[in-house]
Amino acid sequence: MVGSGIRARLRAHRRGDDLRAEIVGIGTELLLGQIPNTNAQEISEALAAIGVDIHFHTVVGDNPERIVATISTALDRSDAVIITGGLGPTPDDITREAVAEVLGRPLRRDEALADSIRSVFAKLNRTMPEDNLRQADLPEGAEPIPIEGTAPGFFIDDPRGMVFALPGVPWEMRAMLDKTVLPKLREHGGGHTLVSREVIVMGLGESRTHEKIRDIVDRQSNPTIAYRAGGGVVRVRLTAKAPSEAAALGLIRPVEDAIRERLGVDALSGNFPSVAEALGDLLRGSDITVAAAESLTGGLIGSELTKVGGSGDFFKGSLVCYATEAKAEVADIDDAILSGPGAVSEEAAAALAQAAVDRFHADLGVAATGVAGPTEQEGKPVGTLYVAAHFEGATEVRFIQAYGDRDNIRALATNAALDLGRRMVLRAL
Amino acid sequence: MVGSGIRARLRAHRRGDDLRAEIVGIGTELLLGQIPNTNAQEISEALAAIGVDIHFHTVVGDNPERIVATISTALDRSDAVIITGGLGPTPDDITREAVAEVLGRPLRRDEALADSIRSVFAKLNRTMPEDNLRQADLPEGAEPIPIEGTAPGFFIDDPRGMVFALPGVPWEMRAMLDKTVLPKLREHGGGHTLVSREVIVMGLGESRTHEKIRDIVDRQSNPTIAYRAGGGVVRVRLTAKAPSEAAALGLIRPVEDAIRERLGVDALSGNFPSVAEALGDLLRGSDITVAAAESLTGGLIGSELTKVGGSGDFFKGSLVCYATEAKAEVADIDDAILSGPGAVSEEAAAALAQAAVDRFHADLGVAATGVAGPTEQEGKPVGTLYVAAHFEGATEVRFIQAYGDRDNIRALATNAALDLGRRMVLRAL
Repeated sequence: MVGSGIRARLRAHRRGDDLRAEIVGIGTELLLGQIPNTNAQEISEALAAIGVDIHFHTVVGDNPERIVATISTALDRSDAVIITGGLGPTPDDITREAVAEVLGRPLRRDEALADSIRSVFAKLNRTMPEDNLRQADLPEGAEPIPIEGTAPGFFIDDPRGMVFALPGVPWEMRAMLDKTVLPKLREHGGGHTLVSREVIVMGLGESRTHEKIRDIVDRQSNPTIAYRAGGGVVRVRLTAKAPSEAAALGLIRPVEDAIRERLGVDALSGNFPSVAEALGDLLRGSDITVAAAESLTGGLIGSELTKVGGSGDFFKGSLVCYATEAKAEVADIDDAILSGPGAVSEEAAAALAQAAVDRFHADLGVAATGVAGPTEQEGKPVGTLYVAAHFEGATEVRFIQAYGDRDNIRALATNAALDLGRRMVLRAL
Repeated sequence: MVGSGIRARLRAHRRGDDLRAEIVGIGTELLLGQIPNTNAQEISEALAAIGVDIHFHTVVGDNPERIVATISTALDRSDAVIITGGLGPTPDDITREAVAEVLGRPLRRDEALADSIRSVFAKLNRTMPEDNLRQADLPEGAEPIPIEGTAPGFFIDDPRGMVFALPGVPWEMRAMLDKTVLPKLREHGGGHTLVSREVIVMGLGESRTHEKIRDIVDRQSNPTIAYRAGGGVVRVRLTAKAPSEAAALGLIRPVEDAIRERLGVDALSGNFPSVAEALGDLLRGSDITVAAAESLTGGLIGSELTKVGGSGDFFKGSLVCYATEAKAEVADIDDAILSGPGAVSEEAAAALAQAAVDRFHADLGVAATGVAGPTEQEGKPVGTLYVAAHFEGATEVRFIQAYGDRDNIRALATNAALDLGRRMVLRAL
């Protein structure tokens, strides 16, 4: 059944050569463009970090012959195949059957797994449809990967290669990737690792950022340097390849330091994925609490802050005053402001930041008001933004003329408000 | 060079059978997970709408042998191959060479294209690196696709199949897709169109949904029926293939009606992508306004409502009371509740919904409180949720034991709160 060349290749990998993996996404909804294949990106990023090479991503629909052919081809050219999707209880979920056929391992019901599926339903006080037990039918010799949500995954260490089958639901996939796939692949991992760090730049555009660090970017080799921009944030990504994580970080460090020195306070300190995380890091463990008052962002500022780990210690809440009358009734914004400069004005933004501090007894207040579109408001064009922060008796307001669609304008307002708060706290420290 | 079977298949398509295409993404950055393959999703969606079937997506890195093998395989099994990426001026851009090799068509410089590349630089007042003229070297017989940004694309109508090569930069790709790829494929198109509609199901799991409509799903042929679940929402997607959009909708309609009849109020009426949109549709144009009071969702309920078009007419705002003391100070929740049943309780949820109505002078109040994790709170386990709605003097509360990570639990709470509000308004209408 298995060529000895493949066995030899596997043995070579176990001696420390690079392990080669590929990712197979299963689901007609992917081929119809109904959902993006975010799983492939996440798995790729995680595998790169442990030195596993990926040569192919493939997506195939819910078609038995094509799934079988795709998995078989993947096993011919790679040492490990990571499959996502097709593990649900419904008849279009056929990954179990396809893997069974490719590897010549008939399906067998795993009784322990069947029990754990029953207990998921019992815990939720629901009756289990009999069909759900199909999810406990695994190819002979498969090792079940414990249920995270509702679908179990499985792993097979076959002479043709390692096969991981994970659910398509991103958070269930992610949990199994971290707990099972990465540990198992790390054992056989390559002799190198790829490490990335991002410098996140606020308040400068992509081209102004590039102007400031152009000579560093021009000299890049290892780490490589790449830009990504959106929602008022520019990400400068440094990626180094080295035999160990420590060595890769050693290559990144001096380049990152040079970039950070050029950018100063415009770069978020630390390795945080968002300005909310960077602000949260300043506040966590300090005695400083934060609250928000928001109009066009509609709750996004609060929602970003609650995503930060430990936010319960520093985030009090947010007054979402979307309607103009709510700004008067709930945030006590002076009628003179609303009927004068208007709800989209420097004065309204400042008053909202003050209201956040007052109403929640917070130390820092951040606020955003503006025109997200699709039409102008109070004669102000789409993209007119005022963000404000209030801290230690002082208020600062920033005007921004943003562009893009509603989502981009709202993301930009959220990030700019949080960034203004971050700058005020930093200056006081 | 070309099998007559393939020619026959192409001829068959020109007689009105289905045209089959596949998408090949080229770029090591995709395999490293540094960027998502959004191009594949966009192209898939556009091709589905004109009735072109897609059976595979493949991603391959900047490696000549693997690119050649991938394009060749794609041409063996499909009638058209759409390639994205690898058209830049740098040495890792090798799509032109790979296509030339696969089709046995040597590269020839297209002088008109070379001139247009020179003029792009002249317009920007930049000197052009000589390397950039590589972008004018196309496989013999290729038809250039005019430059949108900096990279030209090309099209070849080869006996092995149609080949489109487009830049990887999303907006450049999109412009060429619209202007060149779709018109050319439409000529050879399947003579049919693919139309999808979703029935969105709230408050039932995937398997309970399947139980209720199993016989309809078992009888599926055209439309096909597929499930997708997440964040407390089950999406039942019906996809029909027909010569026209009207004919496809005609095939979907009776099956959709049958499903909706079974599911009753658990299915969102209309064709809305979210429960916020469905609730917004009920409120828009009515005199009913809505406000929220939210704890663990941190602003997500408000943010979802502000995404709905015309939300300015019905959404007042939200009290985001994340800290327990904020529930007392900002939402006036009785201390007896907070010190008795607690901030995560039926009573607290009901009081929050009432506070939303009172503070914003809204008609409908929706609220959510619960434990998003990572640790338990007040002795209540992660995933404990209470959502509430207050409308016309009545309050309803629903308890949910949710699972998943923080994001999933918060999404589920948001959707469940909005859904409870939707059900109360529906019952009153």
